[in-house]
This record gives sequence, structure tokens and C-alpha cells, in this order.
Amino acid sequence: MTRKHQSEDSILRKIAASSRSSQGQGSGHSVALGIGDDAAVFRPKPGHEIILTGDWFLEATHFLRDKHPPDAVGWKCLARALSDVAAMGGTPRCFLLSLALPETHTSRWLDRFLGGLRRATRKFQCALAGGDTTRRDEILINITVVGEVRAGTAVLRSGARADDILYVSGRLGEAELGLQILRRSERAASSKNPLTRKHLYPEPRLALGQWLLKKGLATAMMDLSDGLSSDLPRLCAASAVGVRLEKAKLPHVQSPHLALKHGHDPMQLALHGGDDYELLFTVPPRKAKLLPKTFRGVALTAIGRITRERELLVVEANGRATQFIPGGWDPFRKKP
Amino acid sequence: MTRKHQSEDSILRKIAASSRSSQGQGSGHSVALGIGDDAAVFRPKPGHEIILTGDWFLEATHFLRDKHPPDAVGWKCLARALSDVAAMGGTPRCFLLSLALPETHTSRWLDRFLGGLRRATRKFQCALAGGDTTRRDEILINITVVGEVRAGTAVLRSGARADDILYVSGRLGEAELGLQILRRSERAASSKNPLTRKHLYPEPRLALGQWLLKKGLATAMMDLSDGLSSDLPRLCAASAVGVRLEKAKLPHVQSPHLALKHGHDPMQLALHGGDDYELLFTVPPRKAKLLPKTFRGVALTAIGRITRERELLVVEANGRATQFIPGGWDPFRKKP
Repeated sequence: MTRKHQSEDSILRKIAASSRSSQGQGSGHSVALGIGDDAAVFRPKPGHEIILTGDWFLEATHFLRDKHPPDAVGWKCLARALSDVAAMGGTPRCFLLSLALPETHTSRWLDRFLGGLRRATRKFQCALAGGDTTRRDEILINITVVGEVRAGTAVLRSGARADDILYVSGRLGEAELGLQILRRSERAASSKNPLTRKHLYPEPRLALGQWLLKKGLATAMMDLSDGLSSDLPRLCAASAVGVRLEKAKLPHVQSPHLALKHGHDPMQLALHGGDDYELLFTVPPRKAKLLPKTFRGVALTAIGRITRERELLVVEANGRATQFIPGGWDPFRKKP
Repeated sequence: MTRKHQSEDSILRKIAASSRSSQGQGSGHSVALGIGDDAAVFRPKPGHEIILTGDWFLEATHFLRDKHPPDAVGWKCLARALSDVAAMGGTPRCFLLSLALPETHTSRWLDRFLGGLRRATRKFQCALAGGDTTRRDEILINITVVGEVRAGTAVLRSGARADDILYVSGRLGEAELGLQILRRSERAASSKNPLTRKHLYPEPRLALGQWLLKKGLATAMMDLSDGLSSDLPRLCAASAVGVRLEKAKLPHVQSPHLALKHGHDPMQLALHGGDDYELLFTVPPRKAKLLPKTFRGVALTAIGRITRERELLVVEANGRATQFIPGGWDPFRKKP
């Protein structure tokens, strides 16, 4: 099982075999030519634009070799890149996997990693089209996802207007809580613990993003990867607007008492916790009534209002408004 | 100049500014939406397919921080990824840059890196469309290039047929010789030394690849990145053919006496040296007369013949034929 000096060609063959077994699932997505040539060739749908996004997923920075199950690493590296396609209202088509691995990880670890990746590939209908492999002491992953959207319809960050209502999907802070629990635990994470599930197996909100686009409801949209307090200012800056965020309305973790028991304030988690991959979007007031309370079981919560004044304010439960201070994830500001 | 704790947003702004200054050069390539949203959006030409290729370019594996000038790192990371587009006969459209950097390298090093990248962007008419940045002790680069080709016309590795003549562009082994000289030198490489130029500033053969496609001359094509002795077997395997390679015909380094002076056999360099990014392609015998001796100053040399028998043979100058032994670059087989 633990052959050393496995060559790059044989690793490519293993990845290609895993990729073949994940296709033919009725995805209807054709990649004309996948792994094994100089590049992948892919036929875009007429009248559509291509969405392109690239994401690092690096050992020590984004995951821990001894704590994160390999199949969660495989799932999450694709899921989080797909979240950027969801944030434009797009449909995933295919992806490139660049993988650097120690020789010790080219057998069992790689098999389990590819298992998790394959599950995500099937669930989100996004075929592996190619990539690059090399040897490295640390596990390095880079994913490029290619998606599609009808030309001219992608939902951007820059469309928010004064008086639009700000919404968020799902609950905020659960992934961060899971990460904190996992960091303190002495063992590798179990894929069955509900408290770490959202951290390990995030679900990109592809169907929601596509639905919001189709219904013409969202004026601006982005996904929450670095945390609300880091990402919301980016949406406001892109749209040249401000915001009044109602702190009391933030949809926090499902079990606030468990968060407190682990020493975390649910509101701080909701404001600053990263890795949720929920969608943050704005809806004009006259269209807000068309938005359901939940979409396919995922809550849609109004959490504030866009303002003409370019100020970022958090309104406390007592009505006091304070300036917003970004406290989320920025790899150049703080240690992971 | 050396501000610490430069945030990811400010690094993205620096990259975005560099990207803007590299556009508007009359490239005619429109990226509808570049850096700053969740993903890039890009409009493919009607009737065309998309070519996708991803490449690692990692410190210690692919370049050395203290030996390779930052602008050569910037140039080469894009140039080598473009070579995969050249190998299909495609035209580059845009690329994603994923960059992980130590904080110490976010000022001067980054500026010089972006300078080299911008020169390549302009020369090869390929716009920066997005990417991802993070902090890391080592410099990690991943490039995804998106190219285009008229639907159904990409030149694959799998089209070589018995009796086709095998050609290679340029000279083989010069990049490897440059690398060896650079490794032994005690200083950082000078961008002016002609012996290291091909190693530092390779030129993807985009115009040649496009011309071979347009004229319908090449039945199979690939680029030489890992060395002839590693890459040629891949072309033969993809095409289910063998080859008789004429060793005496290999276009070796321009100054064989200098190679010998540095302790390198020009033939070994030509057979096993990596990183040349020349094109290897096959032409049916009846079309061979249509091929010029040089294309825009780059030699095109017949170096062997495709055979029905699936044997890989090297024919020595004395006529003796021996089995081909791959000796090129495989990151899972040997240390860089």
C-alpha cells in the first residue's frame, strides 16, 4: 500500500481514474478532453459567459494534516471554490486540481482525499478536468473552478443600492466554532460530530444563488468566506454604499449554550467567524416580500439595510450604533 | 517600503493595479470582470472551445528564492503555463494567479515579480483575471491559463500515426544547462547572462502552435517541460505508437564546448534536460515538405519517425538502436 517513489504519471493515473468514476452520473456536463493531454478542452454553452475562480487550500494555513480527515480536505477544497460560483449565481462546469504531496501521502491519504473530492464532484455536478501534481513536504492544494452564467446576468458585489435590505443565508459562526473545537481536541476530527460538520463539509449555496439570479431578486451578492465583518465592508466598498447591521438579527449558531460552554460568544462568532460559505445578498425593499423565509431548508434572514452614507454601522439591541470593525480572517494580518 | 502586516486586500489592490496597467495594450481580449469580485467573468468567442491548464511554480521545487530574480519568477510562472496552450495550437485569453508570500516579500519582491509577470502578460496577450493570495513562509505560485481554440481543432497528443515524422522546435537542453550553471553559482542569476536566459525567460511557442494548427500540419503535439526522454514516451503512449529517435539529429545547445566546459554532455542535456518549453510534434511524410526549416527564427528539426511497433528506440550515430530510458524531470522520482 505504501509504495514509495510513486511517479507523477502514476499519481495522475489515480486521479484520472477517480475522475472517470465520478462522471457518467447524468451530469450532462461534457469536458471534451480531460486529464492526460497538455490541457483540458471544454465547450462553453452558447450565449453564456465563463466564471473563473481560483482558491488556495494549504496545510497549516487552511487545514491541519493531523486533525482534518483526508476526505474532508477533498470535499472542502472543492466546496469552498464552488462557493464563489454560487456567489455570482452561476452553475459549475469543471475544475482543475493542483496537488502537491509528500511521498508518504500518495497512497492511503490520497485515496481518501480523492473519495471526499469525488463526493463533492458528484453532489455539485462539477467534473475534474485536469491539473498538476508535484512532490512537496507539505500538502498544498489549489483549485480552479470554471462555471457558467447566461451572458450579462452574473450577480456582482457592486449592485447594492440605498434602502436595499441585506440578507444572509443559513447560520453564521458554526464553521468557526467547529474549527475552535477541532483545534483544542487532541484527536483527529470525527466526520460525525455535528459541531464540526459545517467546518469540515461546507455546502456551497449553488441552488440559492442560481434561484436568486433567475428571479432577479438580488442586486448584489457575495459569499462569506473570511467572516461577515471582513466581507460585508467589501460588498459596501464595491457598491459605494454604507450599511446599518442589526446585531440582534444575526442568525447565530444553532446551540448558543454549547458555544458558550466552549468559551465562545455566539455573537462574536457570527460577526467574525470565517469559512461559513453562506451567501450575503441585497434585495430591493419592494421585492423583499417575494423572498421566502427558508430556501430548501436554509434560512434567509434580513440582517440590516443598505445606506447612502458610506458608513458601516452595527446597531446593538439597545439601539446604539457603533462603527464596524473588521475582525475576520485575513491571512496577511494574523496567524491562522 | 517594507511595511509589515500588509493586508490581503492591499496586496490584491497592488496586483489589480499591475493588471490594469498591463491591459489596454490593444490585446482585444476582454475580461468582463476582473479582480475584486467573487470570481472573474469572461466571454468566450462563439464557435470556440476553452483550453484550461493549471501549473505549480513553487519555491525550492521550481525556483530558488536567492538565485532566481523575482522578475524571472514572474515571467516564467506565466510563460510555462502558456506553453500548454501553445501545445494545443490555442490562443491565450486570461489567467488566474494564486500567490502565497511571506510578509517580507510583499513589497520589493512583489513589485519586481509583478513587473516580470506584466511583461509576459503584454508579450503573450494574456490578461490577469483574478486569483487568490495568502501568507506563507515559502513562496508558492499557481497559475491557471485559459485559452481558446476553434471547436474541434485542438492538436492533441494522441494523433501521431506510423511513419509520421517527429519534429522539435528550437534547441534542447539550454534551459537545463542554465539551471546547472545557476545552481553552482554563488550569486543570484543575472538576467543578462545568455547561458541562463532560456532557463529564466522561456518563450512559449504560441505563434508556432497556432500556425501548425491553422495549416493542418501537425497530427500530434505537446510541449517539452520534463525533458524529451520523459515527454516523448507520453506522446507515444497517448497515440499508441512507437518511435525511432535519431540521436545525431537532436538540436543541442548552441555552444556545446561551453556545456562540456561546465561538465555537461550536450546530448545528455538534449535528451533529458527539462524546462525547454519547445514544441514536439508529428507531421505526415507527405506534408513534411510544407514545413520550413525555421519559423520566425526558431529552428524546426526532424529528429525521428513514428513506428507502428510500440517500441521506443534511440538510434545512435553508428546505427545501433537501444531502448529509450526516461531520465527527465519527475517530481515524485528525484529531488529537484
